[in-house]
Amino acid sequence: MKKDADKTGTGLLEAMHVAQTIAWGPLLFQAARVMRDRGLLAALRQGGPLGMTPAELAQATNTSEYGVIVLLEAGLAAKLIEKEGERFRATRAGHLLDRDEMARVNMNFVHDVCYRAAAHLDTSIAEGRATGLVELGTWPTVYEGLQELPEPAKTSWFEFDHFYSDDSFPLILDRVFRNKPRRIMDIGCNTGKFALKVLARDPEVQLTAVDLPAQIEKCRQNVERAGHGARARFFPTSVLSLETEFPPEHDVLWMSQFLCCFSEPEIVHILSVAKRAMGNNARLLIMDNLWDVQKNDIAAMCLQATSLYFTVVANGNSRMYDRGTLVRCVERAGLRVVDETHHIGWGHSIVECAV
Amino acid sequence: MKKDADKTGTGLLEAMHVAQTIAWGPLLFQAARVMRDRGLLAALRQGGPLGMTPAELAQATNTSEYGVIVLLEAGLAAKLIEKEGERFRATRAGHLLDRDEMARVNMNFVHDVCYRAAAHLDTSIAEGRATGLVELGTWPTVYEGLQELPEPAKTSWFEFDHFYSDDSFPLILDRVFRNKPRRIMDIGCNTGKFALKVLARDPEVQLTAVDLPAQIEKCRQNVERAGHGARARFFPTSVLSLETEFPPEHDVLWMSQFLCCFSEPEIVHILSVAKRAMGNNARLLIMDNLWDVQKNDIAAMCLQATSLYFTVVANGNSRMYDRGTLVRCVERAGLRVVDETHHIGWGHSIVECAV
Repeated sequence: MKKDADKTGTGLLEAMHVAQTIAWGPLLFQAARVMRDRGLLAALRQGGPLGMTPAELAQATNTSEYGVIVLLEAGLAAKLIEKEGERFRATRAGHLLDRDEMARVNMNFVHDVCYRAAAHLDTSIAEGRATGLVELGTWPTVYEGLQELPEPAKTSWFEFDHFYSDDSFPLILDRVFRNKPRRIMDIGCNTGKFALKVLARDPEVQLTAVDLPAQIEKCRQNVERAGHGARARFFPTSVLSLETEFPPEHDVLWMSQFLCCFSEPEIVHILSVAKRAMGNNARLLIMDNLWDVQKNDIAAMCLQATSLYFTVVANGNSRMYDRGTLVRCVERAGLRVVDETHHIGWGHSIVECAV
Repeated sequence: MKKDADKTGTGLLEAMHVAQTIAWGPLLFQAARVMRDRGLLAALRQGGPLGMTPAELAQATNTSEYGVIVLLEAGLAAKLIEKEGERFRATRAGHLLDRDEMARVNMNFVHDVCYRAAAHLDTSIAEGRATGLVELGTWPTVYEGLQELPEPAKTSWFEFDHFYSDDSFPLILDRVFRNKPRRIMDIGCNTGKFALKVLARDPEVQLTAVDLPAQIEKCRQNVERAGHGARARFFPTSVLSLETEFPPEHDVLWMSQFLCCFSEPEIVHILSVAKRAMGNNARLLIMDNLWDVQKNDIAAMCLQATSLYFTVVANGNSRMYDRGTLVRCVERAGLRVVDETHHIGWGHSIVECAV
C-alpha cells in the first residue's frame, strides 16, 4: 500500500479490494477448485482467445449452465476469469491454477488437509495445540497420523511435502557430499526420499535414518526395497524426549524441512542434542524455507500461509521460520553458522553449522 | 491483467500473486478473522504509526507470542499487516476488516454460514441442490430453516440480509409511495422489516405480506407488536407452487432481495403469477443487487461471490443476477420494464414493471 494511500480515493478502493478478497476468500477458493476439477479451466484454454459462452462451456464440461455461470462469475471476482460481451476466457492467473504444478499442489493441500481444520484456528491459538487436526483423526499431532491419514488428505499431504523437497534434492547433493562424508545422519527422514538419493549417489556412504517409529518403518521398507539395506541403520526416536541422544561419529547431520515442525524452545533442544553428537569436523546442514530470504513476495506469502497449517493441523506450536529466528536458535544451542546458501530450487536455504 | 501480460515478467508475477492468494485464501481468511476477533487489529490501531512488536501485541491481547507471530505473518501474506524492522502495523485493508461494518458482516456471514458448506461446492454443482446446507441442518432449502438456524449462523445470516436492505429502505420509501399507493403487497416479506417501514410511513396504507408459513408467522408477530395488525393481511404460500395466485387489487407489488433466491425458470413463474394479480395501473417494484450495474468492481465482486452462498447453502439453483438476465425474465413473463433506478444505498437497483 502506498504511503499516501490514506489520503487518496484510489488507496481506499485498493484497500477495500484487498479486504473483500480476504473476506470472500474461502468461497472464491472453492469456486477456483471446482472450475479446475470439473475441467472448466482446461476447456477455456482449448477455447482460445475468443473465449466461450456459458452454454458452450456447459456442454464441453458436462456441467449445468447454472453451475457454469456461478463459477465463471465467481472467477470474475477472483480475477481468474475475464468476460468480453457474452464470452469468457481464463486470465493468466486462471491458467496458472490449472496448469502450474505448485498451484495444484498448494490448492489440494489447502483443501484436503487444511480447509476444515482451519475453522478451528481460534481455538488452536487459544489452546496452543492443533485443534483442527480432529477433522482428520485423533492423533496428538499430525506426525503420529501421517501413515493413517484418510484420503485424499494423505496423498495431498505427501505431494505437498515432496513437491518442495524433491525438486531441491538433486541440486543439493553436491553440497552434501562436498567434503566426501562417510557417514550421514538423516534426522527426520520421513519416508526416505533423501536417504535413497544419498545411498544411490555414493556406494560406500553409510546412512543413519532418524524419525518417529511409524516413519522409520516406512523408510526402512523403501530403503530395503531399493537394495540399500546393508548400508543403512534405523534409529527410531522422539527427538523431543529429554533422554534422546543421537548416535555419534557422523560427518554430516542432515535436517530437511524438519525444524519447521517444532517450536523455538524445541528447536533449541534438538540442536543441542545434535551438537552433543558432533565432533569438531562434523557439519550440521539445515535445509528449510526461510520466508525472509525468498526471491519474491509470492514465495514469502506461500510460506507465511503455510505456518497456519502447522498451527491448526500439525502440532499447534511450529511454523515456517525467518532466517533471524533460525540463527538465534542455532546460537542458543551453542552451534555456529559457518555457511549459508539461499534460493535453492523452490526457495530452500541450507544453513551449515559447526560446533 | 494487462493485455501484454503474457509476454512480461511483471505479468507473470502478478498472475502468480493472484493465483496463490486464491490458493491460500481459506487460511488467510481464518487468520484475518482471528486477528479481528482476538483484538489484534484493534490493538494495532491503538499502537499507532510506530507499530508494535509481537511481544507487546501478545501482552495487549492476552495471546501467546507464537499465536501473535503466525497471525501477523499470515497478515503480511494477506496484505493486512506491514512490518518495519521488528514492529508491525495494520494496513488500511487490515483496519477495514476490523472497523468497516460491511467487511465485518461479510466475514461473519462467510465464516458462520458458508465456510463449511462451501467445501461441498463440487457436489452442489453436480447435483443442482445446496448440498452444503447439511452443515447447518436438514431442511430442503435454507428458507425452511431460517428461524431454526444454529447460532452463530442465524445471527450472521440475518445481519447480512438486513445490513444490505436496511440501509436502502429509508432511501426508497419515497419511491414506493410516489403514486400514493393504498394497498401494497410485500412478496417475500421475511421478518417484516420493510412491512413495518411501510405501515409506519402512511397511517392509511394497507399491507399484504406474502412468504412461507414460518416467515409469515415471524412477520405477523413483529407487525402486531408494533400495533399495525389491523392494516395488515398475511398470506402464507409457497410462490413456487403452480397453484399459487396472489391476492389482486394492489397498487404496488414489492419484491426486495427476493428474486435472487430463485432460478431463472422459477423467476419467470413468479413474475407470471404477479402479472395475473396486476391491474393496468399496478406497478411491480423489484429491488435487488445486480452485479453489472455497480459503482465499482468491489461491489460487483461481493455480489459474484455471494452467488456461491445460494449454490451451496440456500437452494442450489439461484444467484445474484445481472441486469440483462433479470430484464429477460421480466419480459418472458409478459411484463414491461417502465423505469429503472440504480446505485441506491449499497448498490441496489429498483426495476419498475407494468403489465
